Amino acid sequence: MEVAIGMGAEKMVVSPSPRCQQLWCRAIGMVSAKAVVLASKTKKVWRDDPRRVLHSMKVGLALAIVSIFYYVNPIYDGFGVSMMWAVLTAVVVMEYTVGGTLSKGTNRAFGTLLAGALGVGAHHLAVLFGHRGEPVLLVIFVFLIGAAASFSRFIPEVKARYDYGTVIFILTFSLVAVSSYRVDELLELAHQRLSTVAIGAAACICISVFVFPVWAGEELHDLCAGNLEKLATYLEGLAAEYFREKDELANVHVKGEHDDFSHAYRPVLNSKNTEETLANLARWEPPHGQFGLRHPWKHYLKLGALARRCAFHIDVLNTHTTRCEEDPHLSSTEFHEKTMRACAQMCSASGNVLRELASSMRKMTEPSNARQHLKNSGAAVESLTQQVVLGKETVLFGVLRGASMASLLVEIVACTRDIAASVEELARVASFRRVDAAAAAITHQQKAAAIKPVSGPEDPAGVCIVVK
Amino acid sequence: MEVAIGMGAEKMVVSPSPRCQQLWCRAIGMVSAKAVVLASKTKKVWRDDPRRVLHSMKVGLALAIVSIFYYVNPIYDGFGVSMMWAVLTAVVVMEYTVGGTLSKGTNRAFGTLLAGALGVGAHHLAVLFGHRGEPVLLVIFVFLIGAAASFSRFIPEVKARYDYGTVIFILTFSLVAVSSYRVDELLELAHQRLSTVAIGAAACICISVFVFPVWAGEELHDLCAGNLEKLATYLEGLAAEYFREKDELANVHVKGEHDDFSHAYRPVLNSKNTEETLANLARWEPPHGQFGLRHPWKHYLKLGALARRCAFHIDVLNTHTTRCEEDPHLSSTEFHEKTMRACAQMCSASGNVLRELASSMRKMTEPSNARQHLKNSGAAVESLTQQVVLGKETVLFGVLRGASMASLLVEIVACTRDIAASVEELARVASFRRVDAAAAAITHQQKAAAIKPVSGPEDPAGVCIVVK
Repeated sequence: MEVAIGMGAEKMVVSPSPRCQQLWCRAIGMVSAKAVVLASKTKKVWRDDPRRVLHSMKVGLALAIVSIFYYVNPIYDGFGVSMMWAVLTAVVVMEYTVGGTLSKGTNRAFGTLLAGALGVGAHHLAVLFGHRGEPVLLVIFVFLIGAAASFSRFIPEVKARYDYGTVIFILTFSLVAVSSYRVDELLELAHQRLSTVAIGAAACICISVFVFPVWAGEELHDLCAGNLEKLATYLEGLAAEYFREKDELANVHVKGEHDDFSHAYRPVLNSKNTEETLANLARWEPPHGQFGLRHPWKHYLKLGALARRCAFHIDVLNTHTTRCEEDPHLSSTEFHEKTMRACAQMCSASGNVLRELASSMRKMTEPSNARQHLKNSGAAVESLTQQVVLGKETVLFGVLRGASMASLLVEIVACTRDIAASVEELARVASFRRVDAAAAAITHQQKAAAIKPVSGPEDPAGVCIVVK
Repeated sequence: MEVAIGMGAEKMVVSPSPRCQQLWCRAIGMVSAKAVVLASKTKKVWRDDPRRVLHSMKVGLALAIVSIFYYVNPIYDGFGVSMMWAVLTAVVVMEYTVGGTLSKGTNRAFGTLLAGALGVGAHHLAVLFGHRGEPVLLVIFVFLIGAAASFSRFIPEVKARYDYGTVIFILTFSLVAVSSYRVDELLELAHQRLSTVAIGAAACICISVFVFPVWAGEELHDLCAGNLEKLATYLEGLAAEYFREKDELANVHVKGEHDDFSHAYRPVLNSKNTEETLANLARWEPPHGQFGLRHPWKHYLKLGALARRCAFHIDVLNTHTTRCEEDPHLSSTEFHEKTMRACAQMCSASGNVLRELASSMRKMTEPSNARQHLKNSGAAVESLTQQVVLGKETVLFGVLRGASMASLLVEIVACTRDIAASVEELARVASFRRVDAAAAAITHQQKAAAIKPVSGPEDPAGVCIVVK
């Protein structure tokens, strides 16, 4: 199979040697293209948070320090090959945040201690059963303890705080129980191992706490403040671009500007896991900076949940504004124009409230300025009531809520349509079984006939068939 | 300090002995209470997914098998103390899903191989610099490789697929580089270690694949189908309880029933991380059951994103219905009554669409039944247009969207109020600095005066001050 390669190939048959060259060139081109992509990604990771470079250097430093212990004769003579455990501990315990390192270090130390003690106990018990019974009993112990500890990792409380400790517990118990059959000086070995683990963990904790520390608590605090800022950016952007544009600039719409802020709130939608992890780690940290001993880390989770709820509403609002932009007829109604100003006010006042709250969180001062903006947003809600004169306030809100609910349901119908399209595509690409459509329809009608409709026979959409 | 304890204490001064007894009783009571709580939690974990017990037994089995290797003399004679690495590998590689075990096993094997080769190379290079230069050069190598590999863990692609491999790479390189200074038969050691790691990983992979396997791909498939079912449950519940109740039962409202379904959709809101993890692991798995070699796992992430968007809308809708239930005046308007039936139809038809899609996903058949329900939901949207006669369709939708937007903004104002209350509580419990309110207000007014208002001076809420 000899083929002409490339556009500039003049001969129909290419001799093997230049063809090889071309293949090589192509391969080198591909590799270098990948390398460029990787380099740009690395640069991005670096730029996004320069502390990541510092963290990498800290890991290198911890490893270097523990290695030096290995090379110094007096220390090595004391511990021997067990020094290896210090290196092992340093690699796995060093985490990005102080809380992470403390949690892993403590978990590792206590897991090792507990499992070591239990392992020695198991050995003494097994010895009673003679040389033949000993390994059998040890294997049974390893099976039972391994299974029980693994199961405990599924309990949410254990998973959140002691997952790593449990792994180390299983590891150490198995190692001690298994080694005890071959090693004579078990206590000596256990002692050496515990000391070296302690050395490795201590080195990591010291570097983590004293060399450019990254505190999980501070990260959590900044994350929460940053999330409020992101929501504020969206609302301010919407007030400035979307509502003003209708109000003042009529139809002069610059698409690019809308896109600048319209994705700002996105990261807030999925921040739950990060917040929970950081809150768990923050509890391991000693007091630092402005964060005292009993700083209410749990409260940040509540605040995060509220911010997320706000982000859900903003996401839905974003769908609405996008729809209105796509179809200008939708936003040229009288109702729209009547409510435009009040909407702009609610939007910008809410943005200001969130911006002020975030700023007071960053400065750790009481959010007194936010109160004024809160009054403004309340006033905007009232002015909405006045601008749309429809009678009593509750009636207006009733119409608003009713229309909103209907509109949301219309949107949910659209969502289900997208989901259905997605499942159909999945059925196509993953080649799901095809059902005989006619037969399925008949079965379906039979089912529909067999089940009493919810809201009367004249309303086929109201039939509620639960197919399990 | 002797005090009467308990209600039934007749003497003012309690002698130490019964007091000790009481303290003991209390302590035992507390411990047993905690034990009962733990036991009930364990039972719940067990009941929620009985496969967890199986997984725990599988971990125990893997450990037991690897331990048996240790006790058999011919095998032990071949590998010696290095057999320990098989135990170590078994503990950390065994994961709940097949994909997890395969990913960790492969990562561990290749990380060890690569780092071992590099470590031996580093040793040969360092030896050239003499006995004094060798440890210095080795420490520099460990620092550089450790730092570079740690940094690579921040790159999202590496983090997603090769995170564990990178940790093992750092670990093994450090161990080999450090040991090379003390150990003479380095290649022998590296070979033994690699073989034992391979034995441990192979044992885990075999047990994981052949003994009651839990496939990450299947979990992902079920999770997606389950999420659609959860959304369907909410919509069906709403159609049956909320809308019907207004329609037929007037004000006979049973609170408990609403609560049954109203939390159904909640887990869908935060399913992103789980989905991404499972999709990453599923790619490591060989074809199994109905899932072929190139099953489109990435597509599930798209479907998941659509389901989440639907869940956000439902969350907002849930807020609306809750508000309407709290204040019956809101839902007794003419508009509400007019749109009630169409809303009920949209709701139940969408629920049926989702239920059918989930069912066809579970059965892996084409979603042909869902199409009929989709038509029904489309018809419901049209009937909404007809029922509220307001002229042209676009006008109606304009009013709907406008009202919905206004209503969402009212809701966002309420959200910011909650967030402000939460930040104020945080400021109180974490004792943030208090700012002089009068001074702050003056600065605030000065700022407002200094910045040109966005929508005219008569509208103070429209002032857009960005405080950074």
